[in-house]
This record gives sequence, structure tokens and C-alpha cells, in this order.
Amino acid sequence: MNASHHTTRPATRPATDTTYLSAPAVAELVRRKGLAQSLRGIADNIHADFLRWPAFDKSARVANHSRDGVIELMPIADDRLYSFKYVNGHPRNTRIGLSTVMAFGVLADVDTGAPLLLSELTLTTALRTAAMSALAARTLARPGSRVMALIGNGAQSEFQALAFQHLVGITTLRLFDVDPRASAKLVANLAGSGLDVSVCGSTAEAVRGADIVTTVTADKTNATIITPDMVEPGMHFNAVGGDCPGKTELHADVLRQAQVFVEYTPQTRVEGDIQQLPADFAVTELWQVLAGQRSGRASDHAVTVFDSVGFALEDFSALRFVRDTAAELGLGDTLQLIPELADPKNLFASLRQPAVPRAVVTAPAHA
Amino acid sequence: MNASHHTTRPATRPATDTTYLSAPAVAELVRRKGLAQSLRGIADNIHADFLRWPAFDKSARVANHSRDGVIELMPIADDRLYSFKYVNGHPRNTRIGLSTVMAFGVLADVDTGAPLLLSELTLTTALRTAAMSALAARTLARPGSRVMALIGNGAQSEFQALAFQHLVGITTLRLFDVDPRASAKLVANLAGSGLDVSVCGSTAEAVRGADIVTTVTADKTNATIITPDMVEPGMHFNAVGGDCPGKTELHADVLRQAQVFVEYTPQTRVEGDIQQLPADFAVTELWQVLAGQRSGRASDHAVTVFDSVGFALEDFSALRFVRDTAAELGLGDTLQLIPELADPKNLFASLRQPAVPRAVVTAPAHA
Repeated sequence: MNASHHTTRPATRPATDTTYLSAPAVAELVRRKGLAQSLRGIADNIHADFLRWPAFDKSARVANHSRDGVIELMPIADDRLYSFKYVNGHPRNTRIGLSTVMAFGVLADVDTGAPLLLSELTLTTALRTAAMSALAARTLARPGSRVMALIGNGAQSEFQALAFQHLVGITTLRLFDVDPRASAKLVANLAGSGLDVSVCGSTAEAVRGADIVTTVTADKTNATIITPDMVEPGMHFNAVGGDCPGKTELHADVLRQAQVFVEYTPQTRVEGDIQQLPADFAVTELWQVLAGQRSGRASDHAVTVFDSVGFALEDFSALRFVRDTAAELGLGDTLQLIPELADPKNLFASLRQPAVPRAVVTAPAHA
Repeated sequence: MNASHHTTRPATRPATDTTYLSAPAVAELVRRKGLAQSLRGIADNIHADFLRWPAFDKSARVANHSRDGVIELMPIADDRLYSFKYVNGHPRNTRIGLSTVMAFGVLADVDTGAPLLLSELTLTTALRTAAMSALAARTLARPGSRVMALIGNGAQSEFQALAFQHLVGITTLRLFDVDPRASAKLVANLAGSGLDVSVCGSTAEAVRGADIVTTVTADKTNATIITPDMVEPGMHFNAVGGDCPGKTELHADVLRQAQVFVEYTPQTRVEGDIQQLPADFAVTELWQVLAGQRSGRASDHAVTVFDSVGFALEDFSALRFVRDTAAELGLGDTLQLIPELADPKNLFASLRQPAVPRAVVTAPAHA
């Protein structure tokens, strides 16, 4: 089985079948749909789902912590669809050639519990995080923002850069990373993007004069990447890297002088940069601004912070995008995760009859 | 892709590969290993894992409830392996030809977060529930128990019957179900098992004189399948069907006169038959009896109840069994759920290079 083959499903596809999108299949999906169009599609889905915020059964994610990392499950549902994401965070993984963050997820039918889709979510998480950041900045940053500082030039940085180019209108990027090789990789990956990219010698230099500051650093520490002296009136901070207990990026005084916007307050209080502040520190949930229930930026001089940690609803939105796009492009395989039973009350019978493999029609996806 | 093919893995199998066991593959695994041997293998794993109880990072399951059912995630980990199960409960599913309970799960590497195995768990859950019941009865029922009443003759009942035959020594079964077709199906499926099986006209008739009473009914109500007048000295009750809020099988007075044993107290207080009783009602966790830390049955005349709801550790144990047995039998496919990256800090590069499908050697599993 590999992702360059897809399955033509019969009209009588059993309700027990699960569509499977591998990591190579989703990479191919994004190549064929186009990265900008994929980011737009996911942002549109997130926007539509955030407007339906009260319709979702929400909870903070469930984490199992270990010496070198964490494994989390992120479930959410409305009255038709259920999704969860499995995601790890292991900063030492890169030393053995593995990604720090790896993920996959499932969309299921709320009416029956049947799993409809199993998809990779490593690449998709990078896309949805960038789409979420761009959607927040389009809502909170000053209109006409063109210059972005991008602090932390690791695996997520290209997606942030391109989402802000295509969805927010950023034309100029000022980069900084403690590892010059990370910045060099980002510069190389952005060649031909049309972005005006320069590498700076420090965070302070990159931030100076920027309209938007995106922090997407990886260290699992209470860091102070952004200190109060760097903050200029009107700036929007897109704080992505402070996303679990003990991992922050902004000095507490940066938060105190800003309007702070979050995804889902109960989760952000524990995981976001605001974990440094008292539980009654005032924040606004972004969906309320999108829905017109709360105001966003107070003035051109206000400082806004999107304290992003990543919420299950964004994965729900992204899974809907890959499901619909895979159907449109004819991508995906089929899994038999669930037994197909002649009589559902007779599970035991599945042991008696050897399974008759169903015919699967495959064709090269590039045909 | 289908389960009658398996993959011969190269020595250099990437750490990003995930073994996949479909529903037909696990059915084939159980056929080839043998049902009795599979039940024994899972019970042995559960026993071994229960003896290591304090080593596990445990939590109650996470549930999303909807009009017709529930979808749950059940994570658990020790310092080497992480597992979770996805499982639904939709009693109306059988009306449209789907199982009430469908499940799948994952084993992952705690050190890296990489998913090692994705397996069906619908059939496997039936096996592990029966293995768990038999392990508890072997520990708690009177030695020499030979007669079991089996109340509720649905999808789980064959597995309970055969686990108690092979692991506990039950020779005689007395059946009752409100639906006579369910009992007829169970009788037919047990033909040739060597069990002496009779169908009774009521629960009371089936229970009379039994050594062990297993209740595995499906109605999502506070039922009283077993009332105090049915209880005889020395009986062991294996109460399997009362397993979520609002779903019980035993009259509260049956519990009050018995020694009650549970899997994981915080979960059973909410989901088990003891949800009817105050939070300080005395219970004993089974692992403590297995480990010799608490006593089990007090005397031949005591009434014991195993108030079983199904705990994540049992799925962990069952996933280890299917993983090891699949490796032994050469079963399973391979999924690329995680991107294989030349440089894990350069996720973006996976969009540039079309994936080169890796060669997969397949051969008929029956070869």
C-alpha cells in the first residue's frame, strides 16, 4: 500500500469502511491543491467552525507526560461529526531523525460512532496552525500590515511565512533563530515565494519596526523571547511556541500591557503564555471577535497578542478540509478497521468465515 | 489492501512506519492462534500488567455523549509503551446493520511518540473483556465452579462462554435473553464446544443453582436484571453490562450484601453498578488481590461481585498480545501515518519532493 494509489469506491461502500490518507497522500493533496489554496481552505473552515463555537462539545486535551515528551489526545464533536487528534511533543526526537511533533487523527460519524477518515496530521497540523495564526492576525493586526518578524525558524516557520503572505498580505520577513542553519533553511525554502526575506542578528533587530511578530520557538522552557523593550505601539504578536505547561515565549509584562486573545480559555490558562499570569487575567476568546460579540483591537496604537496553543476544533476543521479535498482529487485508500458483519449481533461469526477480500480498484493518482 | 496479505519488513524499517492490523487480519490471527489460546494469551498479559499497576499513568476515559450514543478515548501508558482505544457505544446501530460497539486502538513508543501499531479492537475488545472476566472469576469465584448462568446473549456472549470454559473450568451454561433469537444464536455458535448448554425461561431460572452469574445485557437503562431474591450463598457475579452512567444491571441490595471488586475505582464509581451507591461504599481493586495486597473471597459462603466496566489497561494488554502474535504469524500491513523526512526540521521539504513509494514485499498470508 502506498499513497500514489487511490481507491475507486463502489456506490455500495460499506458503512464500516474508513478512508485512509497517509503522510505521502496528504503531501500530494497539498501539492495538487496548491499550498496557498490549502491554507485558505483550512482557514475558511476554521472561520466557519469558530462561528459555530457554542455547537461544539469541547474539552481540554488529555496528556500523558513522560521523561522526554508528551502524548496528547484532542477530541471534539458537534452533533454530526466527531474528531480527535493524536499528537506527541518530543524535543529530543530530531537527534534521531524524527520530528518533534507527529500527529494523526480521525473523523467519525456521531450518529453511529463509525470512523469515516484516518489521516496523517503532521503536515496538516503545520498547515492548520499557520492558517489559524493568519486568521487571527487578519482579525487583530492593524490593517495594511506588511512586515513580519519571524522568531524561530524550525519545521513550522515556512508555513507561518506563507500563510501570512497569502492570507494577511505580508510582503517582508525579518528572521531570527539561535541556530543560523535554521534561518538558512527557511531562506532557501522561501526562494521564489516573492517574499522579501532578511536574516537578522537578534530577536530585537528582527522585531524592530515590524507590524506583526510571530514567535514559533521550540525550547521547552519558560523563555522570554520577547521582552517589554521590544514592544512598539500597534504591534500584533502571534505567540505560537508557548503551548504547554512550562513552555512560554513572552515576558509577563508584554502580556500585561496588551490585549490578549485566546482560542479556548480553560486550555490556554494551563498551556499558553498566560500560564504566567493569575487565573483572572482578562482575555478574549477569538471566536467572540469573529462572531461580532466582542471587540478586537482597540486602536491603531494598541498591542494585541494571539496566545495560540492549538485547539481541537482547528484539527476538526482541517480534517474536514483534507476529507473534502481528497474526495475531490480522488486520493486515499480504504481501511477495514471495523468488522463487516452479516449480523451485528453475531460478532463471533466473524471468526468462523475466513474474510473474503473485497475487490479494490486502484489506479495511479497521477493518471 | 486487505488482510490476507502481509508485509515482509526490511531490517531498516523506518521508525515512522506503523504496523496495521485490520478487522479481517485480527480475525485471521485469532483463527490461526486458536480462540482458547488467544483468550489465554490476553488473560496472561492482563495478569502481568495488573501486577505492575502502580507503574501505569492512569486516567478515566474521555467521553463525548450524543443523542444516540457515546464515543470514548481510553489512554494509558507505562514508561515504555502508550496505548489508547477509540470505542463507541450506540445501541441503535444494530437496526442499520452496524455493531453497537466498534473500536480500534494504537500502541505507541513513549520515548519518541511514534505510533507503532494501529489495530482493530472490536473483536479484540470482546476477547479482552471475556479474558478479564475469566481472570477475575478465577481469582474470586469458589474453586471448582462448574455452572454459569449467562444473562444477555448478544455479541459478547460467546466470548464470555468460551473464556469461562477454557480459563475457569465451566462445563454447564444456563442461558437467558429477553430475545429468544439471541439465545438461539448463542446455542448454535456453541455447538461442538463441549459445553452443556440449556436455555431458560427467565433470569431467575437461569441463575438458580449457578456457581457464577455473568450479566452482559445491552439496554442503556438502570435495569435490575439481578434482584436480591436470586442471590445464593457463594455465588460470584460477573457484572459486565453495567458500564456507563445510567446503565446498571444489579439491584443495589445485591451489591450491599456482597464483596465488590473493581478495576479502576475512579472510573467504576461513575460507570459501574456501584454508581447506585454512595462514593464511600467499600470496594477492592482486583489488582490488589492479584498482587497479594488485599484478600479476595472471604469464605465459600460469601457473595462476590466483579463490577466490570472495562479499563484502558486491558486494551493495552490486548494490544501487546495482537502485536506479538501478528509478528509471530507474519500478519499485518504497514501504514505511513508519519512523514519520513530526510531532515526532521525541514517538514516543508516534504511538499517539494513527490514521495517515492517504498517497495513493499507482499505474499499471501496462508503461504
